[in-house]
Amino acid sequence: MFKSSELLEKINRHIAEMSWERQPQGLYAPVAYVLSLGGKRLRPLLMLMAYNLYKEDVERIFNQATGIEVYHNYTLLHDDLMDKADRRRGKPTVHKVWGENTAILSGDAMLVLAYQLMEKDCPADYLQQILEEFSRTALEICEGQQYDMDFETRLDVREEEYLEMIRLKTSVLLAAALKMGAMLGGASDEDAACLYDFGMNLGVAFQLKDDWLDVYGDPAVFGKNIGGDILCNKKTYLLIQALEQADEEQHRQLCHWLEAVSYEPDEKIAAVKQLYTAIGVDRLCTQKIAEYTDRAEQSLEQVSLPASRKEELKALMKSLMNRTL
Amino acid sequence: MFKSSELLEKINRHIAEMSWERQPQGLYAPVAYVLSLGGKRLRPLLMLMAYNLYKEDVERIFNQATGIEVYHNYTLLHDDLMDKADRRRGKPTVHKVWGENTAILSGDAMLVLAYQLMEKDCPADYLQQILEEFSRTALEICEGQQYDMDFETRLDVREEEYLEMIRLKTSVLLAAALKMGAMLGGASDEDAACLYDFGMNLGVAFQLKDDWLDVYGDPAVFGKNIGGDILCNKKTYLLIQALEQADEEQHRQLCHWLEAVSYEPDEKIAAVKQLYTAIGVDRLCTQKIAEYTDRAEQSLEQVSLPASRKEELKALMKSLMNRTL
Repeated sequence: MFKSSELLEKINRHIAEMSWERQPQGLYAPVAYVLSLGGKRLRPLLMLMAYNLYKEDVERIFNQATGIEVYHNYTLLHDDLMDKADRRRGKPTVHKVWGENTAILSGDAMLVLAYQLMEKDCPADYLQQILEEFSRTALEICEGQQYDMDFETRLDVREEEYLEMIRLKTSVLLAAALKMGAMLGGASDEDAACLYDFGMNLGVAFQLKDDWLDVYGDPAVFGKNIGGDILCNKKTYLLIQALEQADEEQHRQLCHWLEAVSYEPDEKIAAVKQLYTAIGVDRLCTQKIAEYTDRAEQSLEQVSLPASRKEELKALMKSLMNRTL
Repeated sequence: MFKSSELLEKINRHIAEMSWERQPQGLYAPVAYVLSLGGKRLRPLLMLMAYNLYKEDVERIFNQATGIEVYHNYTLLHDDLMDKADRRRGKPTVHKVWGENTAILSGDAMLVLAYQLMEKDCPADYLQQILEEFSRTALEICEGQQYDMDFETRLDVREEEYLEMIRLKTSVLLAAALKMGAMLGGASDEDAACLYDFGMNLGVAFQLKDDWLDVYGDPAVFGKNIGGDILCNKKTYLLIQALEQADEEQHRQLCHWLEAVSYEPDEKIAAVKQLYTAIGVDRLCTQKIAEYTDRAEQSLEQVSLPASRKEELKALMKSLMNRTL
């Protein structure tokens, strides 16, 4: 059994060695570019770790692991275009470098490439199941992105709606990565389902932590600028709960800041943060994170393997949840 | 064995009966919209006709036939967005009705839906082959669209480059529809390859005819406005050959019209048409159409079935090539 760091190194090397030389380069250069920007490679790592719970020959599923990373990077490419984001991982986004049409088309090509990799050398016994799982997940992620866009123009998003949105937009892919890895490793349906639930709960906890870090993270270590979500009025768990839990005066102040057009950025961040803390959403958010982290841990415990075999996944979960950036 | 009109009616009914009620409607309403606009349904028809050469239970592959139509409509949706086209089949395009982000995301969802349909109830024996064929084709179509966009800014596109572009952008999907239908029907690899070649040659002839009709079609019957390609300087077979074959004076005149910014539309169309005819590209184009139509016919003849069984496909080819609109 491999350490997660070993699996990460393996898959990083595999992805780095892929060739994107084919023509036309107008289509493939952006694909090479986004894959070269790195990232945590969390989804292929989870797939390999789940597979490695059952089998040792992890190179057997490098295509599928790469497929899920190519897929994830396609979603980032199109999401950045839809969000008009200028930068990703410290570099200009594809539509900034090559224009919007290339961003659309290269993203489309990546989705097809992801399917090709999913299918490549996939054992015939598992092909149908793997593709069903992958397509269902990909469609759910479209739905999550649509809800996220729908929420931008709404002030009445409920907590359950938000949790469902992040489940679709973020968690199902972590869950599917684990489930597909387990399936390919020959796990029982029960184990595969428990690993799916582990990924789902971990994903929700992970996204909530992201929301929390944007406000309460340490500016010295958190990668993005603190308060970015506050400045663009992003519907995070904190804002949604704040709008729901605020008393009349707090609600008025919060709406004042949401509607303000001219302000000092630092002043808005400080004021909204103070409101969040006064309303108690800091605590509500950390409670929710703990709740989903506990559920993730319980899901992992139900996988019918000795605890020692599940240590690596548990350690990865802890490191993801204790991250300060 | 069914008549092509019967198969067309069957697949139209099947597509019309599909439900797109699922949430969020912001994502699925545009899918329902583009599929409701109709169109020739040529690709599913070709798939069903190829299948029907070998088997009678055509309803067996309605999912795959619908998948290829959903796929085709996704390419139109994203191409219209990239071309900033306002209308499609007489109705406003998706990005005009719902905005660009919805056009990107609903298109993405349609690509996933196409894969789901391709895989749905696909006999396990054929699944891997069908998906390989579909993904390879989908990637080639991305490449064709990229070449088409690259050509917009070039004046030195060669005939071979143009033919390769339309092969990728248009023909491979007709070819793949026929090949997949044949494969699912249990055809030999040789027959499937001949039907692929038939579709490929038919597709090139079809696109060249489209280029020709835009200039030489009868305005009273041709669907689009005559001369549309001329007005937007579209790199058609006629323009590319005209630039290549023109003498010095003709080349100067052609470039004058390509660079003109202020002109009477009818005057430009008449002048460029006259140049085309004088240079002889009218004849070159009709020769090329005849050449590819002949090749298509020969490919069909090589399919190892009695001629009577291939009559419907031959008749469809003739009607496509003799269309005046």
